[in-house]
Amino acid sequence: MNRTQIIEEIRKKKSFLCVGLDTDINKIPAQLLTAEDPIFEFNKGVIDATHPYTVSYKLNLAFYESMGSKGWDSLEKTVNYIPENIFKIADAKRGDIGNTSKQYAKTFFETYNFDAITVSPYMGSDSIGPFLEFENKWVIILALTSNKGSKDFQMLKTDDEYLYEKVFRTSSEWGHKGNIMYVVGATHPEAFGSIRKIIPDHFMLIPGVGAQGGSVQDIAKFALNAETGVLVNVSRAVIYPGNDADFPNNIKVAAQNYQQHMAEFIK
Amino acid sequence: MNRTQIIEEIRKKKSFLCVGLDTDINKIPAQLLTAEDPIFEFNKGVIDATHPYTVSYKLNLAFYESMGSKGWDSLEKTVNYIPENIFKIADAKRGDIGNTSKQYAKTFFETYNFDAITVSPYMGSDSIGPFLEFENKWVIILALTSNKGSKDFQMLKTDDEYLYEKVFRTSSEWGHKGNIMYVVGATHPEAFGSIRKIIPDHFMLIPGVGAQGGSVQDIAKFALNAETGVLVNVSRAVIYPGNDADFPNNIKVAAQNYQQHMAEFIK
Repeated sequence: MNRTQIIEEIRKKKSFLCVGLDTDINKIPAQLLTAEDPIFEFNKGVIDATHPYTVSYKLNLAFYESMGSKGWDSLEKTVNYIPENIFKIADAKRGDIGNTSKQYAKTFFETYNFDAITVSPYMGSDSIGPFLEFENKWVIILALTSNKGSKDFQMLKTDDEYLYEKVFRTSSEWGHKGNIMYVVGATHPEAFGSIRKIIPDHFMLIPGVGAQGGSVQDIAKFALNAETGVLVNVSRAVIYPGNDADFPNNIKVAAQNYQQHMAEFIK
Repeated sequence: MNRTQIIEEIRKKKSFLCVGLDTDINKIPAQLLTAEDPIFEFNKGVIDATHPYTVSYKLNLAFYESMGSKGWDSLEKTVNYIPENIFKIADAKRGDIGNTSKQYAKTFFETYNFDAITVSPYMGSDSIGPFLEFENKWVIILALTSNKGSKDFQMLKTDDEYLYEKVFRTSSEWGHKGNIMYVVGATHPEAFGSIRKIIPDHFMLIPGVGAQGGSVQDIAKFALNAETGVLVNVSRAVIYPGNDADFPNNIKVAAQNYQQHMAEFIK
């Protein structure tokens, strides 16, 4: 999926919502547990209910891997079930030496039909390069993450700027705004301004709204650019809204509420 | 597996070799391709041939994931086949926000019976904390990696030291020498001295010998401590020594050669 298609989808749906499929067997409605593949059954329900309101789905690999090889089957079925015009992110946070990163790229871009994968920048350019060789596929580089631990290293000063600023500056030269996005936590609204000076055009994937406390309003105020330029991920607050008996209508309502809030900020 | 057991195994076998099971379906001997599970069949051959000479096996997750859910079955069978007294490393380079890291920890330490997992430090303390809550299980933190890209961020100066030095200094306080090891590339022998000043006692997992050009001699000279304190990983140079007709004897010889070289340096 290319940049133009993503932007079209955002404008058409008046939404920059990314629904996080952090599907946890211990949290899905009890009535699904008797299905042959409860994880896929849940995801199917979520996708059916939310696809008019979301432009992206993000699958958190940890939850699928925890189910062993069966989890990978659920993952595959889920990716294939997502409509073609919706951006599919493998939240896998991979990154390794060149020949290993190449294997990861093949896995997520070819074996599974993801559009994008999250990657860690720590190992540098040759750990990310292999992912950038696939046309219309994307890396989403961890820059300033939403968790407390982002202070430990990302906010260290190096020369006259923070390490995460150096990550934007250096890594944005490895590709372009058509194959690189960045993870920036909604929990750091004060940083969006200086980040937009370094990467005015790149898309940001923004987690940390909902359970982690970030707000759509702050994002709209400080991170949006002329082409929107953001995908805001919400996982738990959409897929586990409580009241299992009303599944999946409760999930539809949660997604629709986010979409309507986002619509106010889309030109 | 605890620290004492690892050290005992090193002294008993006079070896600090870790064999990397980067098992690639395109590189294994042709005669194995008709087996029901060629990946496991190959690994079984490698383990049978090398276990007297190695104290650890490292499974590179990228190669298993690239086979889809079948790959995870091969992974599981392989981990269970490795003798109990040998240290089992999942080279997965994971690390995410707390609830996600917890899922990864459960997967690798409980669902699969690994002793250790490699993790990226970029997301900080709370991304690694959940792994440290398991008794006799280990994280192996990426500090100074063996690839060229290690220069991009790891070697940036922050305050008066390199970022990777800060990683050692900060993260060594999150746990202790009984649950944290570090990845340090054999391609940076000049750095071992200053690293040993920061972490005199911790084990280092050292990749980059063989195909990547690092040497056992340099490691022995600059990185060994009184309890050895190193595991040296060799992947391609052991498991793909050429001459498929002589599999797995050629692999045994390759591992034995490394062991004999290492024995010279073990007190």
